[in-house]
Amino acid sequence: MGRVTDTARLRTVRVRDGRLYSGRKGDHVAVEEPLDIRLNGQQLSLTMRTPGHDIELIHGFLHGEGLIAHREDIREARYCDGAVVDDGTGFARNTYNVMDFTTARPQLLPVAARSFSAGSACGVCGAESIDAVRQKARHDLERSWSIDPRVILAAARTLGEQQPVFARTGGVHAAALVDLEGNLLVVREDVGRHNAVDKVIGWALLADRLPLRDCFLLVSSRASFEIAQKACLAGIPLLACVSAATSLAVDTAEEFGQTLVGFTRAADDGDGRLNIYTHPGRLDLSGVEG
Amino acid sequence: MGRVTDTARLRTVRVRDGRLYSGRKGDHVAVEEPLDIRLNGQQLSLTMRTPGHDIELIHGFLHGEGLIAHREDIREARYCDGAVVDDGTGFARNTYNVMDFTTARPQLLPVAARSFSAGSACGVCGAESIDAVRQKARHDLERSWSIDPRVILAAARTLGEQQPVFARTGGVHAAALVDLEGNLLVVREDVGRHNAVDKVIGWALLADRLPLRDCFLLVSSRASFEIAQKACLAGIPLLACVSAATSLAVDTAEEFGQTLVGFTRAADDGDGRLNIYTHPGRLDLSGVEG
Repeated sequence: MGRVTDTARLRTVRVRDGRLYSGRKGDHVAVEEPLDIRLNGQQLSLTMRTPGHDIELIHGFLHGEGLIAHREDIREARYCDGAVVDDGTGFARNTYNVMDFTTARPQLLPVAARSFSAGSACGVCGAESIDAVRQKARHDLERSWSIDPRVILAAARTLGEQQPVFARTGGVHAAALVDLEGNLLVVREDVGRHNAVDKVIGWALLADRLPLRDCFLLVSSRASFEIAQKACLAGIPLLACVSAATSLAVDTAEEFGQTLVGFTRAADDGDGRLNIYTHPGRLDLSGVEG
Repeated sequence: MGRVTDTARLRTVRVRDGRLYSGRKGDHVAVEEPLDIRLNGQQLSLTMRTPGHDIELIHGFLHGEGLIAHREDIREARYCDGAVVDDGTGFARNTYNVMDFTTARPQLLPVAARSFSAGSACGVCGAESIDAVRQKARHDLERSWSIDPRVILAAARTLGEQQPVFARTGGVHAAALVDLEGNLLVVREDVGRHNAVDKVIGWALLADRLPLRDCFLLVSSRASFEIAQKACLAGIPLLACVSAATSLAVDTAEEFGQTLVGFTRAADDGDGRLNIYTHPGRLDLSGVEG
């Protein structure tokens, strides 16, 4: 798996009936490396991520920050030549950990980048964070479809089977875009759950699929404000997470007309359950028996 | 629970034998709100956190960034008076989401704060991120004690029982400092696992307990670089996480002499298991039977 997983020698310890047992084994750990994101030569952000799909990640990140809207907004993306280490062979090796994105309108974006770094003004509260999303949101999340909850549960089951890095390491999150028939359009894994989301949204942006009106976002993790925000900005009408949702994720989804589904738990035998926090009309409950 | 949990009305959906069942219920969600951290009047960072223990959180955060070393380095900490919203009563209400810390040496710290925001130079890679820790680390993690793995498992069991916010919401992480007899000195919960760690380290800094030579850090989450880094900087010789560790957490722990324990799983009946990734000498395996 190249730079996505690494091997580790470790010692195992077991306690059974109060007795200690120990052994040694090789195992896999998820690779975490820093990614230095530069815009027009200026450093914008440093994120810890699982290497791979970096171009998607940065497109998704820049979109979530409101800095780009279309793939044409980026003229060039390249790994920085100067980012090299001596890997012991005597030859310099590119770390592939520094990427510079050049925008089509370089004079415009550094200002936006600076105001992003500076953050919000005094008086910050949940309402104002949501307000910042409102200013950046370009899509109304109108209700034009509804989906059978069993499709969401089936997709969660499929996602569970399509996480090779998690299967080896137990140490990464996954995000997927799923169409209304339950097909997983793209799956990405990362040590950071927000990075996994950036990667799938970046994938969609590069495929000219934004806004993502006819699919939903499925994440293996919790749903925080950040995840709901990124999904809203990408025009995604439904966000389903395997674990819990935070108060600000619920508030954001409520405000923007997004359906937020949490605790999406699908058993192997076809049974399952989920909670609907906001805008339940997108779930087709016409077949409900009780 | 005041601002720590919030209530939500939600719809539940169950699938059993292919049939749909639905109901309504009230539930609790973990509160997530932004915290605007200011140093000497300048904005330093905006973090999403569970409200409460903000002073500990910011002390821990500033310590992890190498900006303060002792409680005396902070002269004053206060919620910003200007951070108010109208809560519908017609009266302005402090959001308690903006805190300004004033340092004892105000002329020194803004420079450090700026260089922190600017991040690292070109050529960033795992080795250089670890190097940044090396520059900030003040404590050698010498091996002066060893601990029975059963003490760690027992502490993990106790931590599982001392997470009231998680019990209500399923949506927060916990961090605890544990002494060598297995007593939990402090437990903090937060929607962000790094925040939970900042809160317990901030607690220790305010209690003049740094460096934390005679205890270990137990986290309910995975161990990333950030968690290992914060623990190293606080002088904590052993870090135990309930879930996986990333490659860079392993590298960091290895480099600084920290014992890193992962997949700490304690069953209710006393059985359990854990993996030791680095410096196993701090685990007392003298009683091992197999």
